[in-house]
Amino acid sequence: MPSFDTIIRGGTVATAADTFACDIGIRDGLIAALGRDLGDADRVIDATGLLVLPGGIDSHVHFAQPSGPGIVMADGFESGTRSAAFGGNTTVLPFCVQQKGQTLREALKAYHAEAHGQCYVDVSFHLVIADPTDQVLGQELPALVEDGYTSFKVFMTYEGMALSDMEMLQVMSVARRTGALVMIHAENFDAIRFLVDKLEREGHVAPRYHAVSRPIPVEREATHRAISLAELVDVPIMIVHVSNGEAMEEIRRAQAKGLKVYGETCPQYLVLTEKDLEGLNMEGAKYVCSPPPRDKDSQEACWRGLETGVFSVFSSDHCPFRYDDPAGKLNPKSRTSFRWVPNGIPGVAARLPILFSEGVSKGRIDLNRFVALSATNHAKTYGLYPRKGTIAIGSDADIAIWDPERRRTLTHDLLKDGSDYTPYEGIEITGWPVVTMVRGRIVVQDGELVGEKGFGAYLAREKSPYAAPRREF
Amino acid sequence: MPSFDTIIRGGTVATAADTFACDIGIRDGLIAALGRDLGDADRVIDATGLLVLPGGIDSHVHFAQPSGPGIVMADGFESGTRSAAFGGNTTVLPFCVQQKGQTLREALKAYHAEAHGQCYVDVSFHLVIADPTDQVLGQELPALVEDGYTSFKVFMTYEGMALSDMEMLQVMSVARRTGALVMIHAENFDAIRFLVDKLEREGHVAPRYHAVSRPIPVEREATHRAISLAELVDVPIMIVHVSNGEAMEEIRRAQAKGLKVYGETCPQYLVLTEKDLEGLNMEGAKYVCSPPPRDKDSQEACWRGLETGVFSVFSSDHCPFRYDDPAGKLNPKSRTSFRWVPNGIPGVAARLPILFSEGVSKGRIDLNRFVALSATNHAKTYGLYPRKGTIAIGSDADIAIWDPERRRTLTHDLLKDGSDYTPYEGIEITGWPVVTMVRGRIVVQDGELVGEKGFGAYLAREKSPYAAPRREF
Amino acid sequence: MPSFDTIIRGGTVATAADTFACDIGIRDGLIAALGRDLGDADRVIDATGLLVLPGGIDSHVHFAQPSGPGIVMADGFESGTRSAAFGGNTTVLPFCVQQKGQTLREALKAYHAEAHGQCYVDVSFHLVIADPTDQVLGQELPALVEDGYTSFKVFMTYEGMALSDMEMLQVMSVARRTGALVMIHAENFDAIRFLVDKLEREGHVAPRYHAVSRPIPVEREATHRAISLAELVDVPIMIVHVSNGEAMEEIRRAQAKGLKVYGETCPQYLVLTEKDLEGLNMEGAKYVCSPPPRDKDSQEACWRGLETGVFSVFSSDHCPFRYDDPAGKLNPKSRTSFRWVPNGIPGVAARLPILFSEGVSKGRIDLNRFVALSATNHAKTYGLYPRKGTIAIGSDADIAIWDPERRRTLTHDLLKDGSDYTPYEGIEITGWPVVTMVRGRIVVQDGELVGEKGFGAYLAREKSPYAAPRREF
Amino acid sequence: MPSFDTIIRGGTVATAADTFACDIGIRDGLIAALGRDLGDADRVIDATGLLVLPGGIDSHVHFAQPSGPGIVMADGFESGTRSAAFGGNTTVLPFCVQQKGQTLREALKAYHAEAHGQCYVDVSFHLVIADPTDQVLGQELPALVEDGYTSFKVFMTYEGMALSDMEMLQVMSVARRTGALVMIHAENFDAIRFLVDKLEREGHVAPRYHAVSRPIPVEREATHRAISLAELVDVPIMIVHVSNGEAMEEIRRAQAKGLKVYGETCPQYLVLTEKDLEGLNMEGAKYVCSPPPRDKDSQEACWRGLETGVFSVFSSDHCPFRYDDPAGKLNPKSRTSFRWVPNGIPGVAARLPILFSEGVSKGRIDLNRFVALSATNHAKTYGLYPRKGTIAIGSDADIAIWDPERRRTLTHDLLKDGSDYTPYEGIEITGWPVVTMVRGRIVVQDGELVGEKGFGAYLAREKSPYAAPRREF
Repeated sequence: MPSFDTIIRGGTVATAADTFACDIGIRDGLIAALGRDLGDADRVIDATGLLVLPGGIDSHVHFAQPSGPGIVMADGFESGTRSAAFGGNTTVLPFCVQQKGQTLREALKAYHAEAHGQCYVDVSFHLVIADPTDQVLGQELPALVEDGYTSFKVFMTYEGMALSDMEMLQVMSVARRTGALVMIHAENFDAIRFLVDKLEREGHVAPRYHAVSRPIPVEREATHRAISLAELVDVPIMIVHVSNGEAMEEIRRAQAKGLKVYGETCPQYLVLTEKDLEGLNMEGAKYVCSPPPRDKDSQEACWRGLETGVFSVFSSDHCPFRYDDPAGKLNPKSRTSFRWVPNGIPGVAARLPILFSEGVSKGRIDLNRFVALSATNHAKTYGLYPRKGTIAIGSDADIAIWDPERRRTLTHDLLKDGSDYTPYEGIEITGWPVVTMVRGRIVVQDGELVGEKGFGAYLAREKSPYAAPRREF
Repeated sequence: MPSFDTIIRGGTVATAADTFACDIGIRDGLIAALGRDLGDADRVIDATGLLVLPGGIDSHVHFAQPSGPGIVMADGFESGTRSAAFGGNTTVLPFCVQQKGQTLREALKAYHAEAHGQCYVDVSFHLVIADPTDQVLGQELPALVEDGYTSFKVFMTYEGMALSDMEMLQVMSVARRTGALVMIHAENFDAIRFLVDKLEREGHVAPRYHAVSRPIPVEREATHRAISLAELVDVPIMIVHVSNGEAMEEIRRAQAKGLKVYGETCPQYLVLTEKDLEGLNMEGAKYVCSPPPRDKDSQEACWRGLETGVFSVFSSDHCPFRYDDPAGKLNPKSRTSFRWVPNGIPGVAARLPILFSEGVSKGRIDLNRFVALSATNHAKTYGLYPRKGTIAIGSDADIAIWDPERRRTLTHDLLKDGSDYTPYEGIEITGWPVVTMVRGRIVVQDGELVGEKGFGAYLAREKSPYAAPRREF
Repeated sequence: MPSFDTIIRGGTVATAADTFACDIGIRDGLIAALGRDLGDADRVIDATGLLVLPGGIDSHVHFAQPSGPGIVMADGFESGTRSAAFGGNTTVLPFCVQQKGQTLREALKAYHAEAHGQCYVDVSFHLVIADPTDQVLGQELPALVEDGYTSFKVFMTYEGMALSDMEMLQVMSVARRTGALVMIHAENFDAIRFLVDKLEREGHVAPRYHAVSRPIPVEREATHRAISLAELVDVPIMIVHVSNGEAMEEIRRAQAKGLKVYGETCPQYLVLTEKDLEGLNMEGAKYVCSPPPRDKDSQEACWRGLETGVFSVFSSDHCPFRYDDPAGKLNPKSRTSFRWVPNGIPGVAARLPILFSEGVSKGRIDLNRFVALSATNHAKTYGLYPRKGTIAIGSDADIAIWDPERRRTLTHDLLKDGSDYTPYEGIEITGWPVVTMVRGRIVVQDGELVGEKGFGAYLAREKSPYAAPRREF
Repeated sequence: MPSFDTIIRGGTVATAADTFACDIGIRDGLIAALGRDLGDADRVIDATGLLVLPGGIDSHVHFAQPSGPGIVMADGFESGTRSAAFGGNTTVLPFCVQQKGQTLREALKAYHAEAHGQCYVDVSFHLVIADPTDQVLGQELPALVEDGYTSFKVFMTYEGMALSDMEMLQVMSVARRTGALVMIHAENFDAIRFLVDKLEREGHVAPRYHAVSRPIPVEREATHRAISLAELVDVPIMIVHVSNGEAMEEIRRAQAKGLKVYGETCPQYLVLTEKDLEGLNMEGAKYVCSPPPRDKDSQEACWRGLETGVFSVFSSDHCPFRYDDPAGKLNPKSRTSFRWVPNGIPGVAARLPILFSEGVSKGRIDLNRFVALSATNHAKTYGLYPRKGTIAIGSDADIAIWDPERRRTLTHDLLKDGSDYTPYEGIEITGWPVVTMVRGRIVVQDGELVGEKGFGAYLAREKSPYAAPRREF
């Protein structure tokens, strides 16, 4: 047996199915061997008493996105991937957002330029289809899927982004033909506009009214509609950032009928509620995201979704803005109405500690489900498996070593992102990632950034095995 | 006790709750007394062995509607109300359809002109809102509700008729403010267009593809969406012509949550299936209506909806075209694709015999539920009660006398409408209306038209008690 | 038209379907005419401004029942029917309870002897089958059904009463063959005994633990089991005194499948909760009944059941004991553990004022549904219709005249039963019965008993139309 | 790195989460290393083009069970474990059945004696509690759980086996206290007896009436009851051999509420139907098992349960009798009525080929789910993990090598059990186990038995992590 570059010794390895004591031999950035007496290596990492897990994959993050006039997203690829690494992640999937009138190639060129040489962890792009012209649908998309951009996201709300049902059906048809996976932001655009107008007319402009303007039926409706459209086209879809039990129930009903409908939830729906939007002096703006956090029952429902498999992925929907900054949450216009507060909160570094602490440490989910929700299912869903998302022979040595006993109080300075706050400030955490390794190289160790900017690589992806249409028997 | 103009003697009277042997004394067109020894009258009708029921109210019929270039609806108000009377009906509620660019007052003027002096039974109008301008929403509609046009219908599909979700919300808001009831044709417009385009591209243009182009999820989706929008506005709605168990289940879920959502089904969903659209030589065109008839399971589900109260009204959706006529189902364009076949089938006369025979005679529903579904609930739902819809002191003497043993084979010549076929040809019926009386005057007796054209009056309606928003406890 | 003994003039009459202004002519104890100018009569009752409703039928009351060693039920037939009349009732259906070893004929003889000459309102008996011997099943029951005892109740709990599943199936089979209706007290006997034993071992003996000893799953389980057994036999059943949404959901699921399963709820499940069992000094004993009152969500669910028709009857389950009385709730043994507190609370007089006030006056249900739930559906369900339960020609003149504006605070002295408290003490009521008339004779007027003891008659009943097995299509 | 006893080279390894190309190094019966260049070994197995999977665990088999007077079970431990090995299994969990009046220790002694020295694969025992005396509940069971008998099965039907609800609650309480897992055969005993009696009275005695005597509601009822009892005790349970969608729906509802209820289904519910019981000349007896196979919709529902995770284990319920044998299915008494036909069919060898072929090869489930359902979840559920059920460092080298392309027609002679038929005769299979290895030793290779009788060992088990009560948050 040839020798190894690195051996991780003495830890407890977990995959999405298994947990076992084992050393890991790494060679050329790949996992080369699992065993108990692997001999020696250039570098040996002692993982005694620690958990050795697949590095986290966050398949839902926003970096460097143009966010409207005068609004600057708080993270580009450098700070975004840095923060990801601090949170135990080794791969992130940000969005490449098409602007109206823009081709997808143009959009990709710009995002690649932003990312190039900036990343600490590996990166791949979902495409956001905002302008599904015949050219986009007929030529660009099919070619881009072959090039490795194998997932598209569509929005059912947001000015300039929302697709009509006809456009949704057309995008879904392309996905069905090409084997791509469609991700859906499910909220009813008209209903939100109607309610926002009404609230503003009534003088209700504080951040808390953001939640009032997009209540649960707005999300449930769009979820059911998206599922119905996908049912007509017979194409698998992923409903992202599900916030409550009613929307989740739509997904569950679809799954029970045999439809390939997948679901994602996020930390904000497990530990925040709409009450967080009620802070004085615009503090509530720090929690403005869409869908908004709901209530305790919704949190419980989202946990059930994670436990029973209705949700297969857990992401951050990291979408960072600065609070104390005129270009961020408190830009002058946003002070006039919640309507203008940028939608989104940071979370790429907090995601896994929250899931570990609230989920594994508190006994709601076991360690294997944590691995599935944080890494393996992302890789499988988005065509990165088996290269990414597991600890198996031949996979990239993307590894996060966790200390399950490490206790931390979440504060923004732990998270190393470009924002100036965390909505999770003060949450007590048990379990923390102490080493993040990408393709055999350590990026973060014991709270220190030791990786090299630019080591993070772009990943062209395979087609998702989950994107194949349902088999009829 | 003063004497009566007419006494109906010896029959079995049924209301939506009760069945009892009783004579009926009629004076000045009203039901003046119920009892067993009512003395004498100018006219005595012997109802021995017969059922004396409230005259049918068909709250969903189309007469004299412009139906696209070169297409002529087969019934105006004369033949339409005549056919209604032959089918045991004493009141019908056709639609006054606003054209794009037209005011509602203009539309009403035209429909009233068409109806004036032509009707054999009483008539009132629902308004179809196809162009909800600020003027319509802000001024016309509120005034018209006060004038007695207390129900609006909106379409979620059809070129030139479909409203956006924003427009639906606006119309619902007016309904909530004014106490009007919103009726909804629930099918997803974009999905239908998408599927029609696809089918045509594949060369599937025969009438049978009409059903394929609007499968159950198209209706279920729109049903759930309509309910969700109504939930946001907190306004009662009526989902018309529900064709299957999946859409019904959406209504049932809403009712179980305490939402005021009502449902209607029609004879085509009880006794036809999509197989009926498969006839050779365009015979299938005779069954083209929307939503299309489904399958046996859907029929069974619709019966359950009638039995358990998920559906409160049973209407015909009478929308008649001629088959052997270039301006009807077989107009030249409609031969090129199902897309151009006029959507709609006749049924105003067949509705009640079908419900009686398949429902009461076969034991699926009892006589009181028949009365509720055929008359009383229509009157209550649409603001005509207690003037119409029951046999009670002070109500209009609108009465249908049925022979529960009379056997008939349905043929078009029994129905006396302006079409040239019935989609229900050949159905064996047990139970038939032998006398139809409007406000004390006989209109049809033993298959003979004895009423006077123009006796049928226009009815301004009260607000529906069912249209009040849900009480919060 | 012959003259009348009595005319009720100027009131608003309501049936289960209709509401109309009308006079009522009564002759020979029957409703002889409805109309507006009925001429004169020996007695004219002015009902101007009042509601004239069918007298209440309480199809679930317990009078004069042996209740265990040393425990005396607080009402016999005299005080029980008197209290019923004060509460607007004209018919009650108590139980004739078979004791182990006793024949049904023997039991009936004893109950008839208790009732004879004692009643103020009409009375009929359900049979409680506690000892279904071959003789009972094969001979007594079929003969008794023909004699007019057309409903049986079986208990799934209570020492000496609980039937095994086999016995339930056998009783159901008899019901199917004879056309009788089976009523079911659905709680799991073993589960209750298990929990009672456990609670006592833990020292939890206060009345509040009565609720803990029979939580919702105990009732839901038995409800589902009863429905499943009935499904196997294909026989209609009535689940009595449903207390919560989970048990109700089992009934709703069965109805949606087309099974003939009926449901009943009671005032204790609308206005009490388990918190009422928490009073100091054994005050909680006043609220001990089975199933126990639950929580606010359960109340809301029961209202939904009444609104949507899952429940077709609303009864009191009047089962009265005295509180300050050694033979009642506080008999010495019952002070040692909730296990020995007699199960049951009085309610025959409070039932309708509570339903009227909380239901009609507060807008949850309309007047017609009130009539259906309080009278008509009881008559139809239990084979008394059309003799009882409605205001229709030929029916008994059993009438309750209500003042919908009369405000009262519920206190025990208004209710005239044999107990010494009411669990509904202090509830504010809007709407009160001011006249109770049985077969044309006034029994209670303006809070005075004017009827004659013994005027109340025994009613042999027809078979229930609701008891026919489901039709297969 | 030390050398290996055996290397499996060139195969594709799959676990319940991962699939990867990898060699396996085996030392001392354990999996010692995974990697691609593991050097040499005493024995190298070439697995090129083959799948290397964890050996199957069949957690539901019956061997050597006394089966009533004159009836002999067709497999003891020798033939049973031999057949298991031919079917790709490396561990089986038969039942140790307590007889009435017997202690559990006595029963265990007898079963251990039967098994000792006879087994080709590893074996552990579930305890069947048929006589839950105080002694059994209070002393034997707790001690036996500590000794490694960490799962009990209880029957809700069968003469001499069925427990009352009280006994179920008591057994569940012991499980909750001791951390054991309760398995439940859920059918309503009384309902079956009632229906069997009825069928026999009607002369319906052929094998096909076995299915009629235990229709779906019989199973659904008991499933819901078992879940309700477990809910009261707050203890996890496993519902075994679920045959249809209605019973499955009860499990799913429980899981959605957060209850720890697990489900198992079996090959007979995927590929057989009740029509198989209709064969002439008692051929139907070959398919008599309980619950009986249902219909196509039930098969589809069971597949959905496997796909969506409602069912976590897939077992054979191997319960073999001989057909052409007076002591088997056709013993003289069984010819007089289906009542006496022994309940049970063989399947320990056919289970995995059927699941592989119908599931994996036909695309219903992926390979990882196959591994989970066939091995890993059994090990985790029953306290054998990580020793058994996976391919991971330190686990027993229990391995089945499958040729995914091997096509076979199922015939009894392939299966090597003690019965004389297979109910799966003639099914076309794609995918077959070509090597079965237990703790590093090959037992079956290419259809030849090469293992040694007695090498199969008894396994004391840990407590199941799935048996911990639900965490309350």
